[in-house]
This record gives sequence, C-alpha cells and structure tokens, in this order.
Amino acid sequence: MMSEKSFASDNNSGVHKNIMNAILKCNSGHTIGYGDDPYTESAIKKFKTVFGEDADIYFVYGGTGANVLGLTAATQTFNSIICAETAHINVDECGAPEKFSGCKLLAIPTGDGKIRIGQIKPHMHGFGFPHHSQPGVISITQPTEMGTLYTIDEIREIAEFAHHYGLFLHMDGARISNAAAAMNTGFREMTRDAGVDLLSFGGTKNGLMFGEAVIFFHKNMSENFKYIRKQGMQLHSKMRYIAVQFEAFLSEDLWLKNARHANSMAALLAMKLKGFDQIILTQPVQTNAVFAVIPKNIIKPLQNEYFFYVWNENTNEVRWMTSYDTEEQDVDRFVMSIKHHLK
Amino acid sequence: MMSEKSFASDNNSGVHKNIMNAILKCNSGHTIGYGDDPYTESAIKKFKTVFGEDADIYFVYGGTGANVLGLTAATQTFNSIICAETAHINVDECGAPEKFSGCKLLAIPTGDGKIRIGQIKPHMHGFGFPHHSQPGVISITQPTEMGTLYTIDEIREIAEFAHHYGLFLHMDGARISNAAAAMNTGFREMTRDAGVDLLSFGGTKNGLMFGEAVIFFHKNMSENFKYIRKQGMQLHSKMRYIAVQFEAFLSEDLWLKNARHANSMAALLAMKLKGFDQIILTQPVQTNAVFAVIPKNIIKPLQNEYFFYVWNENTNEVRWMTSYDTEEQDVDRFVMSIKHHLK
Amino acid sequence: MMSEKSFASDNNSGVHKNIMNAILKCNSGHTIGYGDDPYTESAIKKFKTVFGEDADIYFVYGGTGANVLGLTAATQTFNSIICAETAHINVDECGAPEKFSGCKLLAIPTGDGKIRIGQIKPHMHGFGFPHHSQPGVISITQPTEMGTLYTIDEIREIAEFAHHYGLFLHMDGARISNAAAAMNTGFREMTRDAGVDLLSFGGTKNGLMFGEAVIFFHKNMSENFKYIRKQGMQLHSKMRYIAVQFEAFLSEDLWLKNARHANSMAALLAMKLKGFDQIILTQPVQTNAVFAVIPKNIIKPLQNEYFFYVWNENTNEVRWMTSYDTEEQDVDRFVMSIKHHLK
Amino acid sequence: MMSEKSFASDNNSGVHKNIMNAILKCNSGHTIGYGDDPYTESAIKKFKTVFGEDADIYFVYGGTGANVLGLTAATQTFNSIICAETAHINVDECGAPEKFSGCKLLAIPTGDGKIRIGQIKPHMHGFGFPHHSQPGVISITQPTEMGTLYTIDEIREIAEFAHHYGLFLHMDGARISNAAAAMNTGFREMTRDAGVDLLSFGGTKNGLMFGEAVIFFHKNMSENFKYIRKQGMQLHSKMRYIAVQFEAFLSEDLWLKNARHANSMAALLAMKLKGFDQIILTQPVQTNAVFAVIPKNIIKPLQNEYFFYVWNENTNEVRWMTSYDTEEQDVDRFVMSIKHHLK
Repeated sequence: MMSEKSFASDNNSGVHKNIMNAILKCNSGHTIGYGDDPYTESAIKKFKTVFGEDADIYFVYGGTGANVLGLTAATQTFNSIICAETAHINVDECGAPEKFSGCKLLAIPTGDGKIRIGQIKPHMHGFGFPHHSQPGVISITQPTEMGTLYTIDEIREIAEFAHHYGLFLHMDGARISNAAAAMNTGFREMTRDAGVDLLSFGGTKNGLMFGEAVIFFHKNMSENFKYIRKQGMQLHSKMRYIAVQFEAFLSEDLWLKNARHANSMAALLAMKLKGFDQIILTQPVQTNAVFAVIPKNIIKPLQNEYFFYVWNENTNEVRWMTSYDTEEQDVDRFVMSIKHHLK
Repeated sequence: MMSEKSFASDNNSGVHKNIMNAILKCNSGHTIGYGDDPYTESAIKKFKTVFGEDADIYFVYGGTGANVLGLTAATQTFNSIICAETAHINVDECGAPEKFSGCKLLAIPTGDGKIRIGQIKPHMHGFGFPHHSQPGVISITQPTEMGTLYTIDEIREIAEFAHHYGLFLHMDGARISNAAAAMNTGFREMTRDAGVDLLSFGGTKNGLMFGEAVIFFHKNMSENFKYIRKQGMQLHSKMRYIAVQFEAFLSEDLWLKNARHANSMAALLAMKLKGFDQIILTQPVQTNAVFAVIPKNIIKPLQNEYFFYVWNENTNEVRWMTSYDTEEQDVDRFVMSIKHHLK
Repeated sequence: MMSEKSFASDNNSGVHKNIMNAILKCNSGHTIGYGDDPYTESAIKKFKTVFGEDADIYFVYGGTGANVLGLTAATQTFNSIICAETAHINVDECGAPEKFSGCKLLAIPTGDGKIRIGQIKPHMHGFGFPHHSQPGVISITQPTEMGTLYTIDEIREIAEFAHHYGLFLHMDGARISNAAAAMNTGFREMTRDAGVDLLSFGGTKNGLMFGEAVIFFHKNMSENFKYIRKQGMQLHSKMRYIAVQFEAFLSEDLWLKNARHANSMAALLAMKLKGFDQIILTQPVQTNAVFAVIPKNIIKPLQNEYFFYVWNENTNEVRWMTSYDTEEQDVDRFVMSIKHHLK
Repeated sequence: MMSEKSFASDNNSGVHKNIMNAILKCNSGHTIGYGDDPYTESAIKKFKTVFGEDADIYFVYGGTGANVLGLTAATQTFNSIICAETAHINVDECGAPEKFSGCKLLAIPTGDGKIRIGQIKPHMHGFGFPHHSQPGVISITQPTEMGTLYTIDEIREIAEFAHHYGLFLHMDGARISNAAAAMNTGFREMTRDAGVDLLSFGGTKNGLMFGEAVIFFHKNMSENFKYIRKQGMQLHSKMRYIAVQFEAFLSEDLWLKNARHANSMAALLAMKLKGFDQIILTQPVQTNAVFAVIPKNIIKPLQNEYFFYVWNENTNEVRWMTSYDTEEQDVDRFVMSIKHHLK
C-alpha cells in the first residue's frame, strides 16, 4: 500500500493552510486581471521590503518559466550560460533554456551540485570572437539540486568573478527558503547583497500551490520583462491568486517555519539512517534532501510503499526529500520500513 | 469609487465555490507530481467521457500556453497559421505563437471575428514552393473574441476545407462553455464531430483559478506533446490542483450553468442598452460579450466606476463582458450609471 | 526550345565580367578567413565612401540572410515588423523572419508594393501593453517587389513617422541599384540621408555571384552583429570572394551602368507591349520589372520558350524582369514570340 | 613581413583552378534560379553516383548552415545532440545549433576529438521522461577538429549504438576528403555504408569558393528540407555557381588529389618538427592538421610571419593546417623560420 506521505519530492506535498486561507480570503468580487490589482501590488511591496525598493518583481507560473524567462532577459541569443551539470536548467527543463533563450548551456561537472571558480575559469575565453558563444551568465542553484549550500562568501566570490568578466549571476532559488533557514540568514544577504543579479524565487516546494517570482536587481535588465513574460506564456490572468500566496508566504515567517521544519526532518532522517551499515549518505545533509546509496534489492519494495526517485541507476543512489508537512512519525515509519526491507 | 463587479472581463471574476471546494478537498496528503496522480487520471477520464476515449488531454497553465503549444504540436516551423485578425493568438499573445512555433501567422480581416472560406481560399497557394510558408493550420475561436458564434455547419465547412488542403483545424475555446451553452449543444458536437483536430479548452473565464486543457483528436499529433509541454514551460508540478478544477467544472453541469448565466446577463445588458439612442451595439450578442459604440465623453467617467476596455479608440467602441457571477442588480446598477452619465 | 535569355528574374543572369575578373584577380595566395583580410577592409572602405565613415558594413551570403539578420539586430523578440503584404520578407522567405527574430510580421495590403503612412498608423497602438507585439520596425523595399519606387520624400516621411513612434526604418535594397539609377540619385540620398536606419544592400540581381551587405547607420544597432551573423549561419569563411565583388560593383559605376541598362530594357519592353490590346500593364514600369495581365491561353506556350513566373493565377498577371545583360534583340525576340502566340 | 602561404587554416587558401574554370565555364546565359537548373541536376547526379541513387542532396552556403540545418531536419526541438566537446557545432558556431534547432548539445570531453561509446552511454537515459531532453542525434566529425580519424569500424560501432537507441548518426564532413584520402577509401564506405544517416559534405577547405552539401540517407528525414533550407537562409539564388564547383570537385579525382597533397604536406611538416626537442606534437598527424606545443616566446614572432591560431593559451598548443596548395618549399621555409626563432 502506498503511504500517504512520501519522500519523493517536496512538491508532492499539498498547500499549506495559511496559503490556502489567503487564497480563500481573496476570492470575492472582481479584480482587474494580469497583475494590475491591489493584491499583486501588495505582494510586490512585501517583496520589496525584503529585497529593497528598487528590486523588480514579476510573478510567473512556475520554476522552469522563472528560470528560462529570467535568463532570457539577462542574455542575448549568442550568449552562453554556465551552470552545474546537475542544475535544474540543465537536466530537468527538457531544453527549455536553449529553445527559448537561444543560448548555449555550458555544464560543469560537479559532485555536490556546486560549481567552483576554478571550473568556470576555463570558459572565460573567446570574448569578442564571433565563432564563440559569448559567456553571459553564471547560474547557481541555492540550495543545489543535491541539497548542498553555497556559503555567502562563496556566492560573493562567484558574483565578483562573474562581474569581473562582464557576466551576470543568476540564482535558481526554487528552494531558497530551505537555504535561508539552514544558514540562519535572510534572503537578501545571500542574493542581492552577495552580488546576485537575478533570482528565481520559488515557493511551490515549500507550501505554495503554484507561482514563482522572478526578481531583478537591475532595472535595465527587467525593463522589457513584461513582454518577455507574456511572449513566454507565463502571464497569469487571475494574478491575485499567485500574489496572495506569496504575501502569506512572506508573512509571519511562514517560509521560515516551513523550511526549518523540512530541514530538521531531513536531519532526523539522516541521523537515523546512519545507524544502517548498508546505507551510505552521499551528500552532506544541509537542507531538506537526503542522498544515499542503498542496496539494490530494497529499492523496488521500498518504492512500492513510498514512491521516490532513483538518482543514479548505476550506483543505486536515491534521493529522499522532506517537506514542510513531513512529521517525525513519517520519518520513523519510513525508517522502520527501510529496516524491515534491509533484513 | 470602483464597483466590486466590473464588466471588464470574465477573468476579473473570482473562483467559483464548487471549484474552490474541489481544490480544498484534494489538499491533503502527498501526491506524485507532474500529472502522475489519481486526480489527473480522473479528470482526464472525465474529459474522455465528453470527447471520446481516444482523445488525448493535457493540462497546461493558461490559455496562451494552450494555444501556442497545441499549434506547435500541429505544425512545423515553416508552416503558416491562418486566423482572424482579431484572434487572441494574433493580437493578445505578444507574438508568442511566432516565437515558439516559428510559424507565420496569416491574419484575415473580419468584422465579427469569424473567418469565411472565401477569405481563406486566397491563401491556399504556394504548396510545395520552398519560398512560401506552407499553410499548416486554420485557427478559429469559438465563441470569437467578438462574442459571436460559428454554427456547427460553418465549423464543419471550414474543417472540410482545411482537410481538403491537408491543413489542421484548431479551435481556441477559451470561452467554449459560453458557446456550447448558447448553442444548446455539447462540447463534442462543435469540436471533434465537426472536424476540429485540436482544441484549447479553457475554464478560467468561467470560474476556474488557473489551468487550461489542450485536447488532441489525433494520437500522432500529440505523441510528443509531453516534451513540448515541458519545454514550453507549461508543466505544473502540483498538477492535482489543475485537475480537480476541471473535474468539478465538468461535474453537475457547472460549466453549463455558469456559462448560461453569463450569457443571459449579457443578453439582459444588451436589451437594456437598446433603450439608449446614443449607444449602438456593434455585434450580435450571442454569448457573454457586448460590444457597443458609446459617446466619447462618458467613457472616462464610466471607467472610473467600472473598469473596462476601449476596443477601438477611433470609433469609441467598448467591450463589456459578463461573468458567471454577474447578477441582475449588477447589470441594473451599471445601466443606471450609464444613464446617469449620458445625461 | 528554351531561350538562352529569360525574362523570369534578374537573378537568372550570370556574373558580370568585371565581377568575375575581380574574383579571378584575388584568387592567389592565402588570406585570413572570416573577413579579417585586406580585400574585405578595402570593400568596406569603399562602402564607407558611399554611406559615410561611421556606417557599419557586414557581408552575408544572401538577401534573405541580410534581411532577417539585420531585422534581428534591430529588434527584440516581442517586436512587430510592419511591411507591405507583397514584401519579400513576408512572402518569399518561408517564415525566416518570424523563426529567427521571433517577431510578428504585420502585412499591409498594397496594390503597388508601397506602403502609405495612413496604413501604418492603425498599427501604432498598444505601446506598453504587454499582450501586444510592440511595433519595432517598418520595412520597405526599394524598388518594391512590383518594380515601383518610393520617392525620397516618401521615404523621409515614413522615416520621420517611424522615428516619431520610436521605430526603426529598414530598407530591403535587393535591387537598390535599379532604384538609384531610375531616380538618378546616389545610394546615400535615398537611404541614410532620408532617414533609413538599416539597409540590405544587394547585388546578386545586378551582376554578382553571391553575397549581400547589411549596412547599419547606428553603431549601437550593429554592436553585436558579428555574433548574430555567425549564429545566423551567414559568415563566409573565404570572405575575400564576396568583398571583391562589391569592390568591383561600386567601381567605375558598374552598378549604375548595369542597373540603367536593365531599367531601359524594361522600358523598351513596356513600350513595345503597349502596342498589344490584349496585354495590360498593371504597374508603372519604373525600374526593371514589367507586370502585365495577358491572355491565359498564351501563358503556357510562351513559358515553354521563355520561363517566367505567373504572379497571380486568378488574374493571369505575369512578371517579366530584365537584367543587366538583357539585349535589345532579346526584347525584340520576346515581343515577337508574344505577338506570335497572341495570333 | 607576412608570408603569402600561411598554416593558419585550409580555408585561407584560394580557389583551385579546376573549380574556378568550372565557374567560368558556366557563366554564360540565363539559368533558372534556386536549383532548378541543369547544373544543379548534374551535380546532384554526380553525388548520387557516389552515395547511391536514393541519397538526397541539397546545396547550402556554408558548413555551419549545413550542420545546423541538417541537424534540424533530423531532430525535434526537445531532442539533445551528443558530440565531442571540441566539435565545430559545439565551439565554433556561436550557438547556432541551439538557437535554430532548439536542441540541447551534450558535449563529451575528448583529448583527440573522437568520442567513444563508453562516453555516450551515460547519456542514454531519461527516454520518455518529459523533463529530460530526449537524445536524438550523435554527431561526429570526420576527420575530427584535431585532425584525427575514426576508423570505419569505429564509425559503424557508433552508428549501431545510435540506431540501437533510436538515435541518428550525423557526420560533419567539413574535411571529409582529407579523411577519405588518408584512409584510402571512398566517401560512401565511411558514411552511408558505415551507418551514417546524414552528412555535411564540405569542400571549401579543399579548394572550393563557397557552398556545402547536406546529404541525407533517409528520404523521410529530408522530405521537408527544402523548406528548412529556405527558412534557414541557406538557399542560394544563383545555384549553378555552387553546383559546378561540386561537379568539378568530384571529377577527375580532384578532391582526392587535393586532399592527398594537403595530408602529405602535414606529414612532411610533422616529420621535420620531430627534429626539434622544444616542439611536442600533441596529436597523431593523420590528415592535414598538426597540433604542437611550442615555446611561448616564439609564438608571437612566428605569427608575425605566418598567421596561425593558438589552440590552447594555457599550454601554448598551436594548430597548423596544410592546404591543397601548400608546397614543399612553404613547409621548408616555415620550418626554417621556426628554427630561426627557436634559437
């Protein structure tokens, strides 16, 4: 029997009750569409409190849209975008960045999802040479797709490196709350203040229903974004339903509580797993992801109870994600099930 | 003071309570993302009851996405797409069809939003001539952006014409419920049975929060659509929240009741407007849209009370839309306000 | 038997001997590729003598490439490009402008290939409205695809109109020599000095083998063109062979002599055709094109002797082009053949 | 003083006299444009003699166009293309493949320009998974950009591997003559007969002025290529001038004599370089390229006499190419100059 709570992905969870209440509350009367409404105005104001008055915020439908359209705004078609081989934009968007932006992606091999300057450096050549895709953006994910974290100093270092060469720094923040919670810092410190130029700010993996924010820290980068968003099929008509979600997300530390909880559940899971000799954690558990190599023979039976993704079929590495609504007893039961199958 | 109910657009209204209840009801526990969940399975089944077992249904975020990705699946980049000059794909999608599909749009002038075969015919040339964008799709909107309707016979005639030349027929059904309600027919009769090959099926203008369905009546047209949807940035992770909306929409005749009501409110408004000599209706009121030329001097004051769009600045033609939640007293108050300003 | 000289198109003619000699002359030794060679430098210098020191000149392979890449440099994907319905970019490039630039083409109906400001004006709306493709460029062809000419005043008027609305003016000058010859003016007067912002400068229809020049009159428009040209697959490796053709073309008034001759042959043909009651010229013969409605029954037999294109199958309108190498006796023989078939 | 013959690239050489004579010979009278002419017919026939009656041959302007448009014909936008990190499509086309085809490029690290099946294998996953760019084509270059060769067995092995997974095998044959000459085999044996599905057939680096052939070994892959070529801005109007070049190229073993000579000159150069302790050849010299690490201090002075490209600035690796017109005394003088600077 399939368990009600899975460890497959944090987007398998439902919508947090505060978010749902905000949706219900705004659901009366008519409101102008496409973002010209007071709910959107208010949510943007809230974001500006976090990121600064001159940050430019746009809501889109989802994370792939946020990444692709933000990168499109920051590039020209003949640019290249440098990212980790494991980056969502590289492996999980079915080539959307290439098709829509026209850019080349340069994927950097990485064990832990983080790219290092030493790896970016060899790509800093061919400037002005018309045969060569011109390096335009470095894109990092925080936390990475492996659940690991860049320190603020590491982000700053990459930003300075990027800017030195005339590149922009993009951050895919699909799970940015988990990073901020884990690092015990605000959103701004690890983005704008560290030199990030544009940010995909996600919430769907932390209690939202849908919607993502593209946040620009340069006005000239965003000046045409309203057209790019529409041409990119990411302008929602009934915008209030995205706006109020983010308003609630940023209110009463909801994002923080949710993320902190999810992170702690991953830590708990990791701790318990350390008791099994046959299970080897492959990444430091810094946010809400646990990567582990497990015996091949238990994968299928375990999946029958708890759906999850095999990350690497060759090494039997699996990924388990915790969510804002994962409970201790969910972890307990899951670990018991693992224990059972390991016998 | 701005009135709570506007006549600006049917997407200014909120989410119908049945839809909201469906959302609330599905909001518990974990569900696999990206559409591999029982809610999506059930909603698709419901659609198949309407359109046939072998119809192929995909949910996307919105109407522009549905149109553009559906048309992309039905074309190659060197095709042309023939549509009315007033078509949403031609005037309201910021060039998304061209950019994403690579196709040329051939816009046919039309007074009432409907295209006639006599107008399409001159474009049926240059087949096999490599300099010429090869005609690939005829796209019609039902009801049109002017609120008018194609009869089933007219649709069939266009479909047969299209198929005779090897073209597909696409229908933009952003307000298809209003058409079906007005024509007192089912969805299938005016689409698949009339020869439509692919359909954008909308609900956001009739009580949904977000989501649209792309429906294919040819398996070979949709075989790669799952990749196109992802690359087109229109695959929602928490798919259940789209699926349950459509499930509720198609249940208990919700779509029909909503659409019928909206249509009747437009009829009421039109009837009342006929009492004013200074107001001239410019289109037959067949669904939930009222187009009228009104005195220039009342536009601004009226907009201050009720936001709406001026359709043609040169002729002072305005568009008023009714919605599923427009009430008789809203119409009464609106007409009184008009009356007041006309003095 | 097919005649050696046709009236099908001016690109059916061969390469002028001066051009061929220039090619032969440069064909010795090694030269750096991709345009970093003295031949290219010299040809560009020659162009600058014509258009001004700060004009920016790039060679590409052909006319479609010149139009599409120039327009791409002048636009963003969410722009629209306004042109005559008969424009080469609209009807003879298989959708290349839409696919590569991402822009929407707005085609203006026209009898004589020329667009008038009164027709452009209705498209000057929706600025700032994100649903609407933002008008970005007006593109005119000089001479038009119908062989007709814009006066310098007409060009200036369109340029001023364009600039007033923040648009650029592009000129497709595939046959610009024929225009300059007919108007007895220089290239610069009818382009840059009249307000044209970017120009496709062609020669293949006037004696060249291949190659076209994209000429920008704004440095900021061309600053990234070297990348666009390469990504647009239009950067020739052995560039000298394009460069020397243009050098010869612009030397010793070759372009002028060739164009003047072609024009005079069209005038001669037109004059002789006026003698036939059954042949009606449909356009003023201002350059090297003759458009005429002819009896349907002579089209096929005449095509068997002289290949040419039927312009409009419904009206039996045909297009006859003269070339730099058309001789009086070619015209005589052609007219005799027409006369023969008319009997 | 710059020497007349360089070792920078085989496209720095001029046009071979046989090619030029063919161009001169066809330059009389009128010919229908865009490939509907007897010269093109004849050249295609010649190609069919080489590759088989049912091979489908299209001429385009250049090598990047051939690669990009051929790959576009063989893919859909959501496919990925697997190639060597050093492949021309990956590093020398400014992102043209991504922009035009919409596909993702997966670059495989390689020392010698050749990719091995063991390196391709890890990319054979995610089939049917919509988040993942679907592997569509493997592209190899023969000879590679490093001058090295795949054996026919290696090509066959890759082809079988590709076909096993439902992928196509593309060969970039920009210097295919050099490969065939070196391997003492025909074109067909190392392409079609070894399982190659589509081929970019080049000649510009072996004596042509311009033009490239895209050759398909599957009719269904090429059925729409005439539109792709036009929309891809690669259809030349005066096609005869490309056709006759290829006709001459394939006649009297011109391609073979030229390539054999260029290869032998590279071998000669390599042999002579082996006499210098300070120069280390970094690749086996199998065709007409010589890669060598040389003392940093001689690069600039040597470039002042003979322009060439530094391949790797970090390691002081340079690339020297020989051409069909490189003479023994050119090699001698070049080596003497090296000797001089080494002192």
